[in-house]
Amino acid sequence: MPISRRLFFGAILSLFSFLSVAQTNDSINIISEEQRKTATDLMQTALNSDLGFEIVESLTTEIGPRLAGSEAELRSLQWGVKLGKELGFDRVSIEEFTMPFWDRGHLHISMTAPYQQDLYGTALGGAAPSTKEIQAPVVYFRDIHALANVKAGDLKGKIAFVDGDKMVKSQTGAGYGQANIRRQSGYHHAERANAEALMVRSVGSSSHRFPHTGMMRKNKDEWATIPVVAISNPDADHFRRLHRLGKDLAVSLHSESKWKGEVSSGNVILDLIGSEKPEEIVLIGGHIDSWDLGTGAVDDGAGIGITTAAAALISKLPKRPKRTIRVVMFGAEEVGLLGAFAYAEKHKDNLHNHVLATESDFGAQTIWQLVSNVNPQATLVIDEIAKILSPLGIVRGGSNVPGGGPDIIPMARQGVPTIRLNQNGRDYFDLHHTPDDTLDKINPKELAQNVAAYATSIYLIADSEVDFKPENKEQ
Amino acid sequence: MPISRRLFFGAILSLFSFLSVAQTNDSINIISEEQRKTATDLMQTALNSDLGFEIVESLTTEIGPRLAGSEAELRSLQWGVKLGKELGFDRVSIEEFTMPFWDRGHLHISMTAPYQQDLYGTALGGAAPSTKEIQAPVVYFRDIHALANVKAGDLKGKIAFVDGDKMVKSQTGAGYGQANIRRQSGYHHAERANAEALMVRSVGSSSHRFPHTGMMRKNKDEWATIPVVAISNPDADHFRRLHRLGKDLAVSLHSESKWKGEVSSGNVILDLIGSEKPEEIVLIGGHIDSWDLGTGAVDDGAGIGITTAAAALISKLPKRPKRTIRVVMFGAEEVGLLGAFAYAEKHKDNLHNHVLATESDFGAQTIWQLVSNVNPQATLVIDEIAKILSPLGIVRGGSNVPGGGPDIIPMARQGVPTIRLNQNGRDYFDLHHTPDDTLDKINPKELAQNVAAYATSIYLIADSEVDFKPENKEQ
Repeated sequence: MPISRRLFFGAILSLFSFLSVAQTNDSINIISEEQRKTATDLMQTALNSDLGFEIVESLTTEIGPRLAGSEAELRSLQWGVKLGKELGFDRVSIEEFTMPFWDRGHLHISMTAPYQQDLYGTALGGAAPSTKEIQAPVVYFRDIHALANVKAGDLKGKIAFVDGDKMVKSQTGAGYGQANIRRQSGYHHAERANAEALMVRSVGSSSHRFPHTGMMRKNKDEWATIPVVAISNPDADHFRRLHRLGKDLAVSLHSESKWKGEVSSGNVILDLIGSEKPEEIVLIGGHIDSWDLGTGAVDDGAGIGITTAAAALISKLPKRPKRTIRVVMFGAEEVGLLGAFAYAEKHKDNLHNHVLATESDFGAQTIWQLVSNVNPQATLVIDEIAKILSPLGIVRGGSNVPGGGPDIIPMARQGVPTIRLNQNGRDYFDLHHTPDDTLDKINPKELAQNVAAYATSIYLIADSEVDFKPENKEQ
Repeated sequence: MPISRRLFFGAILSLFSFLSVAQTNDSINIISEEQRKTATDLMQTALNSDLGFEIVESLTTEIGPRLAGSEAELRSLQWGVKLGKELGFDRVSIEEFTMPFWDRGHLHISMTAPYQQDLYGTALGGAAPSTKEIQAPVVYFRDIHALANVKAGDLKGKIAFVDGDKMVKSQTGAGYGQANIRRQSGYHHAERANAEALMVRSVGSSSHRFPHTGMMRKNKDEWATIPVVAISNPDADHFRRLHRLGKDLAVSLHSESKWKGEVSSGNVILDLIGSEKPEEIVLIGGHIDSWDLGTGAVDDGAGIGITTAAAALISKLPKRPKRTIRVVMFGAEEVGLLGAFAYAEKHKDNLHNHVLATESDFGAQTIWQLVSNVNPQATLVIDEIAKILSPLGIVRGGSNVPGGGPDIIPMARQGVPTIRLNQNGRDYFDLHHTPDDTLDKINPKELAQNVAAYATSIYLIADSEVDFKPENKEQ
């Protein structure tokens, strides 16, 4: 490289360095010494507090499972209101909406050939009932691709079973999306082939004998017209081995799951009103509904406990942060983000005042990463917050990562800036959507780390005056 | 200490040393160099063999759950005969016996107050059916001692729930006996107090939502007259928390479990006939029946796989060992060692020819210890075998430890010498007697270590001429 060009590149690099330092200094200045001190004190307070765990314990014990649209979910909304008032939130309300109610009912399922053996299965969300006991031979498909190749009418009088691979356990839960395809759209193919019913290997990494439920996706705007059941990974392993041995398989099943018409649900809103810019909202939350097999402790009692406790600890500071902190306990998340869409619709004329939003909906193992989707200048503030969170073992991740949590999606699509505090999800898919999602699976110390991360970062964002809005995403 | 006494003690110590060396040399001589070489080669062969795991896979896949007295258990006996013939045992037979059959039937159980929630429960062995759905308030007892203090008639119209502490996980499974009391005799107290039914916290260390079944003990020679159900540890935790909150609990349950009269069962006997002393028997085995909730992989498909594979590997040696090696697949162990008692009764006039007996019935995690109950001279041989096993990580344990495995008890009581190769039982009570006892829970490499330990030690014992009989235990 000629010297002149070297000099040129050197000058450019120096300029970048200079700009970078200048920006960093700006961002440091954006967080005052007093705010920094308040934040780190709050972190310690949260680490020593049991409040988050106590909230999850109360929700899972006093209310129990909270199927979207059920009377139990309605009881949970009242519980949320009572909790919000007890904790001293400034404004507490329920925003109601209506929704179609799918009820699981009772399922009987057993293998009847090559011999009799009970299976551990459960209906998938949206599945139709069997009008009578279905007793039929099973056709084995190694994976969803094999089922997708089935010809129309080829499964008449048969039950299809779609195997697949057990989800790999990972910090990010990366394998979930791929595994989910058989759950979400397997029945589209089974119905096309006129199957009597569909069974799928449970999504999830559990090696325990629990089935994994979850919602299916509509097929051309219609729900399933056949029963669809997930069976546990060990039961699917059993089918696979019997199939390899060349055994003929048959299953008997009877499922009562069905749609039961329009019911009421709602979102609980708890506000800490901002001291200087009350109209600007920093939104955090979790979803209060759960699948009905377990008691919804990790999914998502944890998110309710973490975010409500974080806000409640902030409320004990001598002064409210400048902006309003809003905790939303979303209803009916599991059945299609219904509470989230209802919220975005109801507040559509005010989303420009939603400064930032984030949800905790990935259990309560240790948070290890902070990602964001905000504008470049605000990114430097998030960088600085990540540094303040570093004693918790949290590292800075991508600065252009859309998301913020499932219930945040409808508002993020309309330009609301987001961050996400990513929990270690290694054990999450062992428990998620199974009967094993119970309180004992939460480590109170790890949950307290989560509360500390939320309290610290949300305080700093709410007490800031920075605009976080991503560029070119005007509403 | 005066010099004279020192000299005296020194002389005594020298004498002990001399005797000790002499005995060790004797015992070393009892195992020839050729036997030693054969044993260590066999150990390597076993470590590299998949045979043990393949046997468990075949039993759990091709037969499935094997409730004592069921048609499935009868199928498993035929499976055992076929396997024995395929593996080239010299003599293969079934020794039939009759037994009373208890069938689990269907159980419905749910909490109905303070709200509706399904419970994960199962009937305990020997429990009576409910003639109709029982819907009743629950009376909470912190432990079995609290229930034992209940007054006659005090539980009329009520369902008793006995809580307790979750079993501590340990290598030895030490907490099982204590925890078992509520399962085995809880109903004696509940019946005395006229309870409608009894629920107990599951025995076992599992934090998963599986109930733990198992047999109850007769009360004054009578089986239970009420339904008795174990609920999973997380469900018991839930009850405990609700009780602490002062909530009134109620449960609805309907159980079909009942005694169904006399049926046929049996023990499968596979013999490798001794080359020099065919009348002398070294007995190993496991039990072929299992509880019906899982597929009986760790309890006790593993024992069947380990001992059958060990004998089969010995059978591949150029020459049969001097003594007969007998593999017994005991029937109906879970419901009261019925196969074991039938064996001891049938062979009562020949137990003096049973040189030594041992059973594998504690899963398939790594074997860490060898204990024995043989005479002092033979103890030195076992010490020497332990040294030969030491590359497997096995240490010598007590030399005066009665036992040898549950099915060995009836013959050990009549003086048959025993050893036991103790598996690490840390995870055993997470799985034992639960729906989660399935093949995937077995690590094939650990199981191969088990086979290696059995093959090596049983070969040496069967090719020995030592009398192992404990002293003063003449038959």
